[in-house]
Amino acid sequence: MKTRHPLEVVIWTNEEGNHFGIGTLGSGIAAGLIGPEILERKDDEGVTFANWLRRYGQDPAKLADARIRKDALAASLELHIEQGPNLYEKRIPIGVVQGIVAVGRWDCVVSGSANHAGTTPMNRRHNALTAASKDVLAVREVVLSETGTQVGNVGVMKVEPGAPNVIPGRAEFPVELRDLDDAKVIRMWEHVSERIQQADKEEGVNTHCQSTDNVKSAGATPAIQAAIRDSAKSVGLASVDLPSFAGQDSQNIAKIAPMGMIFIPSKDGISHSPNEYSSPDDIANGAEVLYRTVLLLDQRLNP
Amino acid sequence: MKTRHPLEVVIWTNEEGNHFGIGTLGSGIAAGLIGPEILERKDDEGVTFANWLRRYGQDPAKLADARIRKDALAASLELHIEQGPNLYEKRIPIGVVQGIVAVGRWDCVVSGSANHAGTTPMNRRHNALTAASKDVLAVREVVLSETGTQVGNVGVMKVEPGAPNVIPGRAEFPVELRDLDDAKVIRMWEHVSERIQQADKEEGVNTHCQSTDNVKSAGATPAIQAAIRDSAKSVGLASVDLPSFAGQDSQNIAKIAPMGMIFIPSKDGISHSPNEYSSPDDIANGAEVLYRTVLLLDQRLNP
Repeated sequence: MKTRHPLEVVIWTNEEGNHFGIGTLGSGIAAGLIGPEILERKDDEGVTFANWLRRYGQDPAKLADARIRKDALAASLELHIEQGPNLYEKRIPIGVVQGIVAVGRWDCVVSGSANHAGTTPMNRRHNALTAASKDVLAVREVVLSETGTQVGNVGVMKVEPGAPNVIPGRAEFPVELRDLDDAKVIRMWEHVSERIQQADKEEGVNTHCQSTDNVKSAGATPAIQAAIRDSAKSVGLASVDLPSFAGQDSQNIAKIAPMGMIFIPSKDGISHSPNEYSSPDDIANGAEVLYRTVLLLDQRLNP
Repeated sequence: MKTRHPLEVVIWTNEEGNHFGIGTLGSGIAAGLIGPEILERKDDEGVTFANWLRRYGQDPAKLADARIRKDALAASLELHIEQGPNLYEKRIPIGVVQGIVAVGRWDCVVSGSANHAGTTPMNRRHNALTAASKDVLAVREVVLSETGTQVGNVGVMKVEPGAPNVIPGRAEFPVELRDLDDAKVIRMWEHVSERIQQADKEEGVNTHCQSTDNVKSAGATPAIQAAIRDSAKSVGLASVDLPSFAGQDSQNIAKIAPMGMIFIPSKDGISHSPNEYSSPDDIANGAEVLYRTVLLLDQRLNP
């Protein structure tokens, strides 16, 4: 069989960002979101990105050649494991990705007063950790107060000076909020901010939060979502629409081309772990739906 | 003037424990609480305690000679800054120390499940940090639920794996509780333990706490407290009875001799800081009361 549209298969490099600390690096360069400034960036061992390209026989001067022109592609498809438990637990073999969620990140620093934890009466303390503890719980309460599948996390907590017998004078933690709806992420952050201010008053501390890394949501193209749904149906596979709560290369590609993603089940929703597992049947189902979606889009899309 | 009892003046070495990580080291050896095992202990630079003694011209083999025989002393007196705000804020020049508080310490480890903070639904999380945050607040609530001047602290919080986009799978923190009443410290810990278990159930995690460093309270001898009180009165200085919430060399000496401590005000209750300050008048008052207490005890004590 020969398609009307030429096909290209790509494996993007360094999606996880372990090297150079930038996720979705290959697709970011292809989509023109990362420019030549990356060439001088050094990894943990002090080796620049340019030198890594040379090690692999590439010419750093040709970085811009990797860029894909906007609207050069009729469609982009990505097949991926869900990385969450929804398909696995509901025994639905195919997920039609609605889009990749917005991720808002803020770094918060609570400033209190370090002092002797024996001699300072309880009512004279400006304890950064008790305030931060309230903030951690407030993040979750705010996330759960909205309807929907939004999530939030505080994954780090640094306390200074950090001794059992010293009242914490400083606490630092990041807040992360995710939802497909950019406005909901902003709204949740506003509510979290109010709760942080409230905790500040109660604890006699001062918290300053700074936005660090805000990625807007990337919607999947409706016509491609429909093609995935129809393809699954044509081969007798149930599907469900759902967001991708993890970042994806496709969120970069969405900037330059119509985009869609197919999810298959992840056992127990586990990913980024040796326990990550998708069954051979699930993988075959995903490949079949990808294949049929390519053919369907080839018919449906112009030119 | 000549006293009936011979007088000795001592400055104990290494009260703070910065070197070798053991507080009240000199008085601990004198009181026989620290034995020859200390000789082989190494500091951060790998130099043994024995070698440090040699550097200062001492003979490590004679460590036991530093020991003071139990009941060899008729009384021991220590003059100290309060390190807390009570005397300073109440403008009382002399504190009669009732004793040195018991300090209970426990190391707690919360075990949850690290997972992707984007793809794991909020109701499927086993978040070690939300549990630990509840525990931090519970420690304070338990301490405040008792009447008295007891204190409690969580001064450290370590979170693993420790990334903004990963649900904390492990949290580790120490709990410290202090009061003059040993039984109250135990009772508070029992209540904290119950609250930790409650948080475990709510958060679907498992917390294990281990007792690490429990120092019992050391009461000041009533006759010496009375002599300090009477001496202050004789020179027209107001005094108040209060516990020492900080550890002291005198808590070791209390094991081998009748013991008393005199406190003077600390500006704003600050200690262990460049801002630590006691006025020349307060220091002179302390010296005067120490002097008069020595004379009074010399009259009152046998032989």
